[in-house]
Amino acid sequence: MPNRPEILMTPGPTPVPPAVLIAQSEPLVYHRGPGFGALLTEVIDGIRWQANASGDVAVYTSSGTGGMEGSVANIVSAGDKVLVVSVGYFGDRYKTICERFGLDVTFLGYNWGQVAKPEDVAKALDDNPGIKAVFIQHSETSTGVCNDIEPIARVVKERDRLFVVDAISSVGAVELDVDGWGIDVCVGGSQKALGATPGVAFITISEKAWEAHRNSNAPRFYFDWTAYKDAAERKNPESPWTPAISVLQGFAAAIRMAREEGLDNILARHRLLSKMVKAGVRGIDLPLFGENLERSLIVTAVKVPDGISDEAIVAKLRSRFGIVTGPGQGPLKGKIFRIGHLGWVDPLDVLRFFGALEVVLAELGYPLKLGSGVAAAQEVLLQP
Amino acid sequence: MPNRPEILMTPGPTPVPPAVLIAQSEPLVYHRGPGFGALLTEVIDGIRWQANASGDVAVYTSSGTGGMEGSVANIVSAGDKVLVVSVGYFGDRYKTICERFGLDVTFLGYNWGQVAKPEDVAKALDDNPGIKAVFIQHSETSTGVCNDIEPIARVVKERDRLFVVDAISSVGAVELDVDGWGIDVCVGGSQKALGATPGVAFITISEKAWEAHRNSNAPRFYFDWTAYKDAAERKNPESPWTPAISVLQGFAAAIRMAREEGLDNILARHRLLSKMVKAGVRGIDLPLFGENLERSLIVTAVKVPDGISDEAIVAKLRSRFGIVTGPGQGPLKGKIFRIGHLGWVDPLDVLRFFGALEVVLAELGYPLKLGSGVAAAQEVLLQP
Repeated sequence: MPNRPEILMTPGPTPVPPAVLIAQSEPLVYHRGPGFGALLTEVIDGIRWQANASGDVAVYTSSGTGGMEGSVANIVSAGDKVLVVSVGYFGDRYKTICERFGLDVTFLGYNWGQVAKPEDVAKALDDNPGIKAVFIQHSETSTGVCNDIEPIARVVKERDRLFVVDAISSVGAVELDVDGWGIDVCVGGSQKALGATPGVAFITISEKAWEAHRNSNAPRFYFDWTAYKDAAERKNPESPWTPAISVLQGFAAAIRMAREEGLDNILARHRLLSKMVKAGVRGIDLPLFGENLERSLIVTAVKVPDGISDEAIVAKLRSRFGIVTGPGQGPLKGKIFRIGHLGWVDPLDVLRFFGALEVVLAELGYPLKLGSGVAAAQEVLLQP
Repeated sequence: MPNRPEILMTPGPTPVPPAVLIAQSEPLVYHRGPGFGALLTEVIDGIRWQANASGDVAVYTSSGTGGMEGSVANIVSAGDKVLVVSVGYFGDRYKTICERFGLDVTFLGYNWGQVAKPEDVAKALDDNPGIKAVFIQHSETSTGVCNDIEPIARVVKERDRLFVVDAISSVGAVELDVDGWGIDVCVGGSQKALGATPGVAFITISEKAWEAHRNSNAPRFYFDWTAYKDAAERKNPESPWTPAISVLQGFAAAIRMAREEGLDNILARHRLLSKMVKAGVRGIDLPLFGENLERSLIVTAVKVPDGISDEAIVAKLRSRFGIVTGPGQGPLKGKIFRIGHLGWVDPLDVLRFFGALEVVLAELGYPLKLGSGVAAAQEVLLQP
C-alpha cells in the first residue's frame, strides 16, 4: 500500500503506539524546570516497576549501546579482570567494549543459539581468580535465546562478584527481577518491549555497584553515574546534560499504557505471542533455531529452507507487505531469519504475519500448504 | 494561561516549530532500511550546509555534551598535551572532560564575560611546546559571548595543531565556516538554533582529525568515529547503534524549513533579534554583560539591578507569563540573567518578551518607564 508505514517485526525498534507518538509531538518541557522533574520521576518510577529495581536509575540519552558502555565504564579501571559471557552478537559487543577500556577479559563464548550454563560461569570464576564483574545478556537479540539469569546470578553472588546484565530487549517482555535475583547493574532501552522510540537507555545501580563506581577510574564523562545521581537528586529532578525530552515524553506515555495493561498481563501477552509464532513456524514445517525456546519470548529465529536465502525472505516480506524482519547476523548470516514479537504487538499481528510469510515462501519456491502456519497460530489462540 | 506550553527563551532547547513536532509523531522508519538511509543523508547534508563542512559527519544520539566527549576521545591518547581555552561554563567542561581522559591540560581561562584573544592562544601554544589540540567554544552559552573563531583558527593552523570548536549553540545562528576557517573538529546539536528537539549531536571531522583519530587510543566505543563512518558508508547509510529515529525525523523537518528560509536570511534574522534584544535592555536602562556584544547574537546576558535577584526575575517571568529564561551560572550566579534568542524566534517574540519583562521588573520594584524596552526594540524594527 503506498505510504503505509513500515510494520516493525524486528527485534527492535518495535511498533510505537499512537499515544506515544502523539506525546512526542507535544511542545518541549524545559529540562531545568518542574515539568521535567515530574517527567523524569515518572520515567524512573516506571523503569523501577518494570525491572523490580529499588536502587538508583541513570537515564541516558543514547542507544542501548551507550547503556552498555555506561555499565562497563562506571565500575572498572584499566587492567581489571572481568568475565564476559557471550551467546551471540551483543555478548561479543560487551567483550569489545571491555577491551576498549583496557580490561583483562576472560571470555566464555558459546555457539550462537546456545544459552549460558550456570556451572560454566561458576567454573570460569573459580578458574580465574580476581574477576571483578560478570557481563551477560538476558535476551540475546541476534539469536532470540534468553539466558536463565536467576541461577547464573546465584553463582555470581555466591562468589561476591558484580553482576551486570544487558536486559535491553527483555525488560518489559519477560520476567526480570533486579532486586530479587541480585543484579548489580541492569541495562535497558526505551525502544524495545517498553514501546517507546529509540534514544533513551537506562541503568539500574545497586549499592555494590556504587561501591565499585567509587573505586573506578576508567575515563568517562557523558555516561558517569555520579553526574546523573547528582542531577536526579536536585529539588526538581534533572538530567545532567540536555536530554532527549521528546523521547522521554513518549516514554512516559508508554509507561502509562503499560501500567494500564498491568505487568502480569504484559508478560502473559508476550508468552502467548511467542507460543503463536513458534507454533506457526512449526505449522509450515520450518525448524526453529536456538536452545531453551520456551524461554525465548522476544525474538524467534527460524532456520531458512535449503535454497532460499534469509535476505530474500526478509526483502520480500518488506517489498510485498511492508513487514520488516531481521536476517541472520555474524555466523548465522544466511542461516536464519528473525521475527520480533515484543512491545506493542498482539495476536492479530501474528496471524497477519503468517498470512504474509506463507505467500512469500510460496513465491520463493518453498513447498508449503497455504494456511498451515496461520492455522497453527490460530490453534494456540483457541486453546483455553 | 492554563496549559499554555512553556515559552522557551533559554539558551536551548529553543522553541520547536509544529512541523518538527509533527514529524516526530510520524511512525518510525526502520534504522536498517532504505528509508533511514535517506533520512540520515538529509540530516548530514543539512549539517554540512549549515556549517560549511565538506568532510565526514558523525551523528550521535546524545546531548551536546556527548558530542564534546566525542570530540576529545577520538583524537587523543592519555598523556597528550592539549590547550583548553575557556571563557565560561562550557569551556570549563572541556577541561574536565580532557582531565577525565588523562590529558595534560594547559588551561587558558578568561574571566567569564570576556572573549578569547588570538594572541593569547598563540602565546600559550608557543610557551607550551607539544600541544596537540586546541579546544574552544564558538558561543559560550553561560555568558552569551561569542569568540571570534577565524583569527584564532589562523593562529592554531599556522602552528599545525588540531583545532576543535564547540559550536553547539552557534551553528545555524551565526556565521560558521568549518572548511574556510580550518576547523578540524566541530561539534553541534539539534536543539539550539537548528530548531529540532534535543537528543542528537554531531561532529564534523577533517582529514587531519582522521589522522589523529587513527593514532589515538583513548578508551571509547559509543562515540567512536570509525563506527559511524563505517555505518554511514553502507549502501543504505546507517547509524552504528539504534539512533533516536524520531528526533532525526524532526531534525530533517527543521533542515527543510531552514533551507526554505535560506542561510543568509537566517543569519540576518538572528542579527536583527539580537539587536532588538540589546536595544530593549538598554531601553530599560539595564547594563548588558560581556565583551564584543556585536558578535554575541545568540544569548544576551543582562546584569541584574541592585536589590533584585536573577532567580527572582527568572521565576517571575515563568510564573507570570510562562516565559523561561536562564539565571546566572557559576561565578555569575546572582549577577546576570540570560535571554536566549536563537532558533525559531522572530521579532514579535522579542516585543512580547519586553512587554513581559517590564511588568516583572516593575513588580519587583525596579523603577522603569513602562514601554521603554518595547519602544527601543520597536525602533530597531523600524530602521530601514
